[in-house]
Amino acid sequence: MAKVACIGNKGDINESDLLEYMTGDHQTNTIGMYLEGVVEGKRFFKAASEASRKKPVVVIKAGRSEAGAAAVASHTGSLAGSDAVFNAVCRRAGLIRVQNSEAFFDALAAFEKLPLPRGNRMGSLSITGMGCVAATDAAEEYGIVLPPLKQETLERLGEVMPSWAPVRNPIDTWSAIEQHGSKKASSHIARCLMDQQDVDALLITFVLMPESMFDISEAFAEIFKQHPHKPVFASYYGGTAREISHIHDGFSALGVPCYPTPERAIAAFGRMVEYARFRGVIRG
Amino acid sequence: MAKVACIGNKGDINESDLLEYMTGDHQTNTIGMYLEGVVEGKRFFKAASEASRKKPVVVIKAGRSEAGAAAVASHTGSLAGSDAVFNAVCRRAGLIRVQNSEAFFDALAAFEKLPLPRGNRMGSLSITGMGCVAATDAAEEYGIVLPPLKQETLERLGEVMPSWAPVRNPIDTWSAIEQHGSKKASSHIARCLMDQQDVDALLITFVLMPESMFDISEAFAEIFKQHPHKPVFASYYGGTAREISHIHDGFSALGVPCYPTPERAIAAFGRMVEYARFRGVIRG
Repeated sequence: MAKVACIGNKGDINESDLLEYMTGDHQTNTIGMYLEGVVEGKRFFKAASEASRKKPVVVIKAGRSEAGAAAVASHTGSLAGSDAVFNAVCRRAGLIRVQNSEAFFDALAAFEKLPLPRGNRMGSLSITGMGCVAATDAAEEYGIVLPPLKQETLERLGEVMPSWAPVRNPIDTWSAIEQHGSKKASSHIARCLMDQQDVDALLITFVLMPESMFDISEAFAEIFKQHPHKPVFASYYGGTAREISHIHDGFSALGVPCYPTPERAIAAFGRMVEYARFRGVIRG
Repeated sequence: MAKVACIGNKGDINESDLLEYMTGDHQTNTIGMYLEGVVEGKRFFKAASEASRKKPVVVIKAGRSEAGAAAVASHTGSLAGSDAVFNAVCRRAGLIRVQNSEAFFDALAAFEKLPLPRGNRMGSLSITGMGCVAATDAAEEYGIVLPPLKQETLERLGEVMPSWAPVRNPIDTWSAIEQHGSKKASSHIARCLMDQQDVDALLITFVLMPESMFDISEAFAEIFKQHPHKPVFASYYGGTAREISHIHDGFSALGVPCYPTPERAIAAFGRMVEYARFRGVIRG
């Protein structure tokens, strides 16, 4: 975190001043804004458009509802304005708008740590079937494609997956883990997915239990290094404080953001895809 | 947690068997189900209706999307069925359906710890204006009413709120905290809200910083005890691991569930209101 600015009632400095400043600030790679209202509409749109062409700007705006707008007026005296208009402004200016504070920090972590994706196609592996199904539902919700596995990928996966197991993307890793242990099975499967050419990003989901406590860096560092343009997300279910900190620390050392559910990881990837389209890194 | 059952591919025991069993089980106060599909539709509807008349049943069902349904078929061979149909079944049988694993555990914690509310009206206090605005937006989203403060409540609040501060529900406590310290200001304001007759539930939101590290039990125990029928929710923003565990432990000792954002607390309260309506505890 390079800089934090709280501008309260904006007596002297407003959001457009700060956007202009942060756009030129070399220490700032990603901008996050909590807004209650905008005081100079035209200037804000121009500043936002220019900022978005250089770096991602994630925005959470309060006062979405009518009652919320009244609460804003009581808090800072700002006019929250129409929510539909603000949505249109964000879309045109390339601002990434999120609806709550968890999605705000989730998106910022992704933009700050990861390269922009070159497509919206994600490979996914999970130690439970529940993680696979949740990822599939979330992918549909956030416009992410889970591409089918190629013949070549399937053949290589056969080295760890038993022949009776159904193998599709997302890959349920449990049967491979039973036969080869978590570390070997997870890293081999991650490698197969990353190596498939039409996979643009990877999601690894753990259930936090003893099987998940292997050396994360040893298992994945080499694979991630070979695919520097493919963003990787980690997520998990459950876990004790010790297990949660093990997985956060392990992935953090690899530059991979880690989310408490696959849904939140995929939502963050969806934000990256949206922004990569705005920047022309993804076409169509 | 009294019992956990994982029924996998349901070779012998299915969800209806378990619902019937849990309905009669005296150790079980609240039922949580992760479902991929239902094998005996009619029997399930009957078992669900009977269970819901006795205790809350929170359900997360995977395979909401078409792609998710295919993933379910690959995982357990279940037919996920139409999502709209399952929604209608939940509504008629009184099942509380949630859409992701965080909302699932959030709702279970509320039902397990709190009395059913007698109305959908919530009093709310927050150490930041952002918490007030977020709560207002979330209340509108989840059908919760934030009733205006009565004259009598306003007069009592005047004992800690400076005369220049705007006072409305949700109450921004910062100006009172500056003058009287966190503990005194927060507990006085919580008491005023709980004492107002048309307030059915309370939400307390902290930002985790040194000001929030007072003795939670000393500040609130007496107030909560005087209103045993009004459920209380806590929420917070940010915080180090130590601050988060302080607030979780403090509220947990008072039987109050604690959520990482006000939005998630209000969503859980919305689930309780929905169920209290089904049970006839709330009319209209």
